[in-house]
Amino acid sequence: MDDAVRYSLLSPGKRVRPRLCLAATRAAGGDPERALPAAAALEMIHAFSLVHDDLPALDDDDLRRGRPASHVRYGEAVAVLAGDALLNAAYSHVIRHLAEPADVKLAVLAELSGGVAAMIDGQYLDVTAAAPSEDDLARLHRLKTGALIEASVACGLWVAGLPPDDQGPYRRFAAELGLLFQIVDDVLDDGTDGEPSYVTLLGRDRAREMVHESHQRALELLAAIDGDRSQLAELTELIARRSA
Amino acid sequence: MDDAVRYSLLSPGKRVRPRLCLAATRAAGGDPERALPAAAALEMIHAFSLVHDDLPALDDDDLRRGRPASHVRYGEAVAVLAGDALLNAAYSHVIRHLAEPADVKLAVLAELSGGVAAMIDGQYLDVTAAAPSEDDLARLHRLKTGALIEASVACGLWVAGLPPDDQGPYRRFAAELGLLFQIVDDVLDDGTDGEPSYVTLLGRDRAREMVHESHQRALELLAAIDGDRSQLAELTELIARRSA
Repeated sequence: MDDAVRYSLLSPGKRVRPRLCLAATRAAGGDPERALPAAAALEMIHAFSLVHDDLPALDDDDLRRGRPASHVRYGEAVAVLAGDALLNAAYSHVIRHLAEPADVKLAVLAELSGGVAAMIDGQYLDVTAAAPSEDDLARLHRLKTGALIEASVACGLWVAGLPPDDQGPYRRFAAELGLLFQIVDDVLDDGTDGEPSYVTLLGRDRAREMVHESHQRALELLAAIDGDRSQLAELTELIARRSA
Repeated sequence: MDDAVRYSLLSPGKRVRPRLCLAATRAAGGDPERALPAAAALEMIHAFSLVHDDLPALDDDDLRRGRPASHVRYGEAVAVLAGDALLNAAYSHVIRHLAEPADVKLAVLAELSGGVAAMIDGQYLDVTAAAPSEDDLARLHRLKTGALIEASVACGLWVAGLPPDDQGPYRRFAAELGLLFQIVDDVLDDGTDGEPSYVTLLGRDRAREMVHESHQRALELLAAIDGDRSQLAELTELIARRSA
C-alpha cells in the first residue's frame, strides 16, 4: 500500500499548493519550516484527488504527469484505497506533526476539511452536470480547484499566527489565483479532453484574454498584501505562465 | 451528492460503533451527549468504508443492508465521491461540533485517523493477499475491523476525560470485542462470500467454538472495568448473539 501511496504522492509535479502554503507563511512573517506538515498534507490531498479523479468511473485518465495513472499501475482496487489512504494521511500528518498550539492545529484542520469538502462537491458537479453555463463553470472551478488553493494560503497564515481579521487580503488574492490557475488549465487543455471549460464555452481567444485579466487582478490583489511577497509573486508568475 | 451521502449514512444498521462510543463515555463517568459528534463521525467512517468496499473493483457487492449498494443506486463515480465525502465529513464534524477543549478534540481526531489508517491497510491486505494463514487472518481482522471498534471506545474515553493511563482495561475489552465481532461475522457468513474467514480456514465447528471463547474473554475483560458497564454489556451481547 505504501508503494501505491508514494507512487502518486511523489510523482513529478509543481507542488503549487505546498509552495503557496510556505510562501504565505513567509509573507505573513512566520517561519515556513513550521508550516511543512501542513504543506505536506495539502500535497497529499491533491494527490488523493488526482488518484480518484483518474479512475475509470470518473475521468478515466490512463496517464498522470506523464506516467501511468495509479489504477493502471496498481489496479483499480488499490487505487481506490491509495486515494483513501492519502486523504486520511493528510489529517493524520497534521494531527501528529504540526508543532503548533492545539487551536492553531484545529484551525489548519478546519481549512483542510473545508477545502476537501468543496473539492469533492466540485468533482461531483463535474461528473454529473450536463451542459454548464458560464456561471456553473465558475462555481465548479471555485469548488474543484479554488477552494484548496485558498486553503493552501490560509493554512500558511494560521501557522504564521495571522489573526482572521487580517487574512482578508491574502484570501482575496488566493481566490483570484485559483481562478487564474483554472483558466490557464483550460487554455492549455484547449478543449481536447471534452470536459466543460472556458475554451469550449467561450472560445480560445476569450479564454486567453481571461488569463490576462485574471493575472492582472491577481497582481493587484498581491500588491495589497503587506509583507515579503516575493515567493507569492514567483508562484503567481509560475501559474500564469506555465505551459503544462 | 448529499443524497448519496445520506443514503449510505442513514441506511438501516445496528450503529455498533457510535453506541460503543456513547457507552464507553457513560462507563467512564462522562456525559454521553457530549460524545455525539464523535459517535456520528464513527458511523460516517464506517459508512465510508462500506461504500468503497462494495465497489465493483473491490468486493463487488450489489446489496448492502438489504438495499442496493451505493454504486448500484447512484453509479460508480458518485459512490467513489460519496465515500470520500463521508470520510472527510467525519473529520469535519468533529473539528466543528465536538464541544471539548482543543486537546481533547485532537485526541479524538488522532483516534479516528489511526482507526481509519488501520482499516484501509486491512482492506488492502484483504484485496491483495492470496491465501492467508490463521495469523494473517487475525492481523487482517484486527486492522480491518478491530482498530475502528477500539477507536470507538477510545473516543468515548477521551470525551469522558479518562487519562491514557486508565484507558488500558477499556482498550483490552474493545480489542476482544473487535475479534468477537469478526468471528461472528465469519460464522454468519458461513464462508459463502469466498473471502478468507475463520470458517473457511478452520471449519464451522471450530469457528463457533471461537465465538464462545471470545465472548467469555470479552465478558471477563468487561468485568475488569470500573464504572457503569450496563450499556457495554448490552452491546457485547448484541455482538455475540446477532443473527445478521
